[in-house]
Amino acid sequence: MASPLEPPAHVVIIGGGFAGVAVARGLADQPVRVTIIDKHNFHTFLPLLYQVATAGLEPADVAYPIRTIFGHANNIRFRHATVREVDHDRSVVIFDGGAELAFDHLVVATGATAAYFGIPGASRFAMPLYSLADARRLRNRLLASLEEADVAAEHAAIKLTFVVVGGGPTGVETAGALSELVRIAIRRDGLRIRPEDVRVLLVDLAPRLLTAFPESASRYALRELTSMGVEVNFSRSVVEVEQGHIRFDDGERLAAAAVVWAAGVTASGTIAHELQVSAGPGGRARVTPDLRLVDSANVWAVGDAAAVPQDESTVCPQLAPVAIQSGRHCAEQILRVLSGEPTQPFRYRNKGIMATIGRQAAVAKLPRGGVIKGTLGWLAWLGLHLFYLVGFRNRLRVLINWTWRYFDWPSGPRLIVADAETAD
Amino acid sequence: MASPLEPPAHVVIIGGGFAGVAVARGLADQPVRVTIIDKHNFHTFLPLLYQVATAGLEPADVAYPIRTIFGHANNIRFRHATVREVDHDRSVVIFDGGAELAFDHLVVATGATAAYFGIPGASRFAMPLYSLADARRLRNRLLASLEEADVAAEHAAIKLTFVVVGGGPTGVETAGALSELVRIAIRRDGLRIRPEDVRVLLVDLAPRLLTAFPESASRYALRELTSMGVEVNFSRSVVEVEQGHIRFDDGERLAAAAVVWAAGVTASGTIAHELQVSAGPGGRARVTPDLRLVDSANVWAVGDAAAVPQDESTVCPQLAPVAIQSGRHCAEQILRVLSGEPTQPFRYRNKGIMATIGRQAAVAKLPRGGVIKGTLGWLAWLGLHLFYLVGFRNRLRVLINWTWRYFDWPSGPRLIVADAETAD
Repeated sequence: MASPLEPPAHVVIIGGGFAGVAVARGLADQPVRVTIIDKHNFHTFLPLLYQVATAGLEPADVAYPIRTIFGHANNIRFRHATVREVDHDRSVVIFDGGAELAFDHLVVATGATAAYFGIPGASRFAMPLYSLADARRLRNRLLASLEEADVAAEHAAIKLTFVVVGGGPTGVETAGALSELVRIAIRRDGLRIRPEDVRVLLVDLAPRLLTAFPESASRYALRELTSMGVEVNFSRSVVEVEQGHIRFDDGERLAAAAVVWAAGVTASGTIAHELQVSAGPGGRARVTPDLRLVDSANVWAVGDAAAVPQDESTVCPQLAPVAIQSGRHCAEQILRVLSGEPTQPFRYRNKGIMATIGRQAAVAKLPRGGVIKGTLGWLAWLGLHLFYLVGFRNRLRVLINWTWRYFDWPSGPRLIVADAETAD
Repeated sequence: MASPLEPPAHVVIIGGGFAGVAVARGLADQPVRVTIIDKHNFHTFLPLLYQVATAGLEPADVAYPIRTIFGHANNIRFRHATVREVDHDRSVVIFDGGAELAFDHLVVATGATAAYFGIPGASRFAMPLYSLADARRLRNRLLASLEEADVAAEHAAIKLTFVVVGGGPTGVETAGALSELVRIAIRRDGLRIRPEDVRVLLVDLAPRLLTAFPESASRYALRELTSMGVEVNFSRSVVEVEQGHIRFDDGERLAAAAVVWAAGVTASGTIAHELQVSAGPGGRARVTPDLRLVDSANVWAVGDAAAVPQDESTVCPQLAPVAIQSGRHCAEQILRVLSGEPTQPFRYRNKGIMATIGRQAAVAKLPRGGVIKGTLGWLAWLGLHLFYLVGFRNRLRVLINWTWRYFDWPSGPRLIVADAETAD
């Protein structure tokens, strides 16, 4: 650790998601200076983005100012900026615009983004759900489609199809919430289109939903989604996405008001290129067991951006608990390096995984393989997500919104948010 | 009124603000068909826009879906569209894109927009507060200015000036809230800029604040604003607004991080031109005492868009109570015309006016001229605004936000909302 006369070491963290915030939290009030950089001034609670997209929550419910998280910690600064590149030789971060920031240690926590697997048109016309901007765009598309259908339904019978690609937790959660939104909006808001003329179709390449869960969970999720009016197609792949259409491997070309892309994630291109980091599986940064880049002594990578080792041969899945645990571990190791102690390897403590399907329906896979389903699973999911929301006020607001929605009160925040962005 | 065999008359309302919503409410469950048209799918509670601009409230707190307001009324339809023109001869509304909608009665409730009085650069570089989009833009500018100042303050002393033009209720409320925001954000969020280096300047052409109120209210508002750190300049006019600067009639050219334009309103250009309505004072539609256009039997104008008569020689001010009362009156008169009864002239019932200056400070002018100041005025202001917020949930959310803010908790929603709109 630095002597009292030396200035404290400077740790720079790129990214204010789960991983980056966990690193900074681990360094709060320690004898280091910390700068956390993000192009957004807020932390986004990604597990609830699908709720923003389906108008169950407002953007402010799942976003929290990064400055406010660390307002109490005098050794942590926030910088609202975009990193253009990292000069590893000079240990300097270079921002868009050319300003530089020197570091003693750098943590790459830049997260992941949607993977399109080279499918033509997917990156352009399908709608991912990996940022607040994505969620707002998807919500606007969904609500605007219903408004257009309402006008058209005056003169002719209208069919509307929303397609969700991917049967993992994000796909299942989004399809369920979307089906609920459509039915609530049509009934409560007096839309002219009939509920039976709106189709929500979930398509997956796999032969079952939620492949990371046991088969009993998959069967349960399928039964619940089906009872909510979602159609599910298995073992079917997308070959092209066009404006207003989607094409499948069996030759069908379907008119779709929106294609939600929940097929998988990849580390953001930034890591391999701009940050000049050696990329491993899924574009994720290769790291040593202590989470340092394989070829660096003072650059670390955590969360979705890193190929975090699970054991000798496998890497951890890209999940919030991995991000939080790896961030916390990284902070400890930086402090160890600074005090001349040897580092320790990261160990992932599996806390289980969860997915919600609708009101009162959720599945959880416990660390030892057991499964919780139904209302109990849903309550567990609710409690856990509320617990992890960053601020007390956010928790309260989300709880209010959910309570309203649960009791089916008509005043859901079905605002077309794009309307608020354009000139009056 | 139509006989049971005739189809009911069709009333088309352009605009979902206070006035348009009041008209539709007055026609709910009456023997008419109603279509309310707005380019936004939500009603905006304009009196609280300054709170959104200064990050005290979220956009969803002051916006409410128009469909949801009328979800229970089977005779009211909402149409999410922009009106391009009105064909008075054929009694048809023409939308952007060319679709048409025939009406038996048309109500113009298109509201007002900022008046720039021909001051060079004002419409381009000053920031008005007359729509949710305006409020979001202003908030983004304010918070982004603080972030930029934080980076710059690392190397040099930084002075930041925000200018509010106009000393009416909007200007006073915005200047007060802005000064509070700056001080809270600097203290709570650990910004490097010093509070004393941020200047909030309110400029007005008049010799006192709140000219619509008695002088004792003006003195009180000035004392409160000053104690909150707002500088007030009287009898001073703006001659030009440039990017990053403002110029005054005394020759001073001041660097300004933002110029908030609260100098006055004018009816939106739409009324006089696209809707082919004869315009009176402030571009407002000239109407007869029963609120019909002077040259029409079936086109009405209400709220800020209309020169609503107060008595034989004067017109009402552009205020929310006038909009609501004139909308309600218009609905009654349309029903009278449809049942062959004579119409009645509009009478404005003065309910007084209010302005808030900060937490615990407000002034109200009572109908008979009395003034309420201080905490009592603030509580009255709070109760009245909560009462008029459209939905129960919105009221609860706003109350929670205010309670938090009042007790100065650190978790204010200081999100740079533009960040959520750009690509991740």
